[in-house]
Amino acid sequence: MLSVNEAISSLLDNSKRLVDTEEIGLLDAAGRTLANDIVAPIDVPPADNSAMDGYALRYVDWVDSATGIALSQRITAGSVPGALRPGTAARIFTGAELPAGADTVVMQEHCEGSGSEVRILKLPDRGANIRRRGQDISTGQKVLSAGQRLRPQDQGLAASLGIASIAVYRRLKVAVLSTGDELIEPGQAAQPGQIYNSNRYMMQARAAGQADVIVTSGGVSVGEEDHVKDVVESLGAIDLWRIAIKPGKPFAFGQVRGTPFIGLPGNPVSVLVTMLVVGRPYLFACQGISATAPKAVRHSALFSRKGSMREDYLRVRATGDGLELFPNLSSGVLFSTTWGDGLVCQRVDTDIREGDFVEYLPWSSFS
Amino acid sequence: MLSVNEAISSLLDNSKRLVDTEEIGLLDAAGRTLANDIVAPIDVPPADNSAMDGYALRYVDWVDSATGIALSQRITAGSVPGALRPGTAARIFTGAELPAGADTVVMQEHCEGSGSEVRILKLPDRGANIRRRGQDISTGQKVLSAGQRLRPQDQGLAASLGIASIAVYRRLKVAVLSTGDELIEPGQAAQPGQIYNSNRYMMQARAAGQADVIVTSGGVSVGEEDHVKDVVESLGAIDLWRIAIKPGKPFAFGQVRGTPFIGLPGNPVSVLVTMLVVGRPYLFACQGISATAPKAVRHSALFSRKGSMREDYLRVRATGDGLELFPNLSSGVLFSTTWGDGLVCQRVDTDIREGDFVEYLPWSSFS
Repeated sequence: MLSVNEAISSLLDNSKRLVDTEEIGLLDAAGRTLANDIVAPIDVPPADNSAMDGYALRYVDWVDSATGIALSQRITAGSVPGALRPGTAARIFTGAELPAGADTVVMQEHCEGSGSEVRILKLPDRGANIRRRGQDISTGQKVLSAGQRLRPQDQGLAASLGIASIAVYRRLKVAVLSTGDELIEPGQAAQPGQIYNSNRYMMQARAAGQADVIVTSGGVSVGEEDHVKDVVESLGAIDLWRIAIKPGKPFAFGQVRGTPFIGLPGNPVSVLVTMLVVGRPYLFACQGISATAPKAVRHSALFSRKGSMREDYLRVRATGDGLELFPNLSSGVLFSTTWGDGLVCQRVDTDIREGDFVEYLPWSSFS
Repeated sequence: MLSVNEAISSLLDNSKRLVDTEEIGLLDAAGRTLANDIVAPIDVPPADNSAMDGYALRYVDWVDSATGIALSQRITAGSVPGALRPGTAARIFTGAELPAGADTVVMQEHCEGSGSEVRILKLPDRGANIRRRGQDISTGQKVLSAGQRLRPQDQGLAASLGIASIAVYRRLKVAVLSTGDELIEPGQAAQPGQIYNSNRYMMQARAAGQADVIVTSGGVSVGEEDHVKDVVESLGAIDLWRIAIKPGKPFAFGQVRGTPFIGLPGNPVSVLVTMLVVGRPYLFACQGISATAPKAVRHSALFSRKGSMREDYLRVRATGDGLELFPNLSSGVLFSTTWGDGLVCQRVDTDIREGDFVEYLPWSSFS
């Protein structure tokens, strides 16, 4: 049997990015995958600016707290200041650009202003309350990487650099087929049908340039009634893998008329687990995404369980105290996945004792 | 100052569901919020069925391992079996319905079949290898709850119950306005404008029955150049809240012509944090979602940091060893959020020492 890591490595070795790039607007980019690094075209902030509502001046122009300094301009965020006349101060607001010549900002709580002049009661250090040009990001700095999926804050960062459109990979097209005579569509009555023929028809049609990858569920065991193997073999090639994963042992990988093919098991929990753990990294690689593994977090187990010869993905619910185990781990019980908040990965031959910290994969870590 | 929990509670106390329901197809329901409980209309599995490829028989009909039993039918998954003739066995496959009369399934590895009869070398216990009708879900059981957001496995579970369409809440319409003279659209040159007027225009237009909630960023401090307060007050009502949260102190809540209004701070990290921590629970409640709080996980800190008077949301990156802290916690540095994997909640007056387990909120926990 293949270990789970061997299976994932083997799939990744056989993967390649299957999609072209396209240029899209930044607001449409949520969840898309960057095709190029994003390098800052400007400094952030673009100019020295005030961190406070207050007054900007030359540090050397201050005499004492009793002596007024004439106000020569008023600078709001978004306006363009002139150079600061020597011996004067400028009223300035948070985020507003510092006028040339000024080197210090005094917060308004330490000032008394009259409209035409200001008295500075307490002078801070030279250079105080100024956000320096380029202190957050400097021109030429790589801020986002090709192969990264875009989250809202990534879109915000690109916007803050003045970037309006970006190159992303086109979405991967995945054809999904569920096989099995026993499957009917919700809302309909059962129609026992010729699964062999419909499978062949659908796979051939969909693989003919319309899908980048084909994923099926069911029919990849070696039983008399498991027909997917024969269909795929007649149209391309298939390898049956025995992966040491539970739920979800039978797994197939191959191609249909040159289109990559993944065959998942038939039981619903096995479908979900093998898709998330084994299939997802492969599909991510085909989509051009560089980080293919979900990030597990550690959480304490509220249960004990002996390890086995297979890597076991347990359905758990997260409480404040730790992780509860769903009592029935049969691969047919889809309710275990809707009841729970995610999976615990129990490694081969590794016992879990109550209170142990375990590898917890919330469902959201696969999003 | 309000604590973060007080602020959230106060918002939730002032919230009500703002959206109607609609009936949609199950395949369109990803991420939508259930409007009604889903109660199982059938048993799952719907009938006793075989857990193995093998042979079904009456336990009492077995004589010994040398005596053949005649095969009277062949039952594949999806087909409808007749009652089992006494003294005979049925060839049966995984998932196929058990024929009336049969009480035991023998796995094929323990049998020798000839086509017309089978010899059972090793008889299991009576009732073995049968998945009982209703063992996973029984008719009338509540399997999904109103107010739940639908994940793929929830859609799968509903499908397994034969449910083709469901009632969900219509999507909440949120009008989003960014204020500030210094804001320009990416890809354009700056146009210093009349922020006061444009805000008034946009808020009134959008609030006039087109949005369920209005969210703005910026302009809710009490400075001379913070105009949002005056605009909202002239059109409805506004309360400025001082929340003990960092980043993100200024926060406003009110209404514009009867439409709820949330005013976020202006700095980008403050916008993100207050939106996720304080705004999101309120918007979720308005959307009809019952679980409004993200689920934190515990992870070990690779840094030390003194607590403060405010609840501090630190930007961190997750490594195998624990959580790294972004060095610059200024609320202007959006790069800290794209660099990182999520937030650590540092409670008021609570020091963090390296190696401590802390409350970690991966970005995905807010999805």
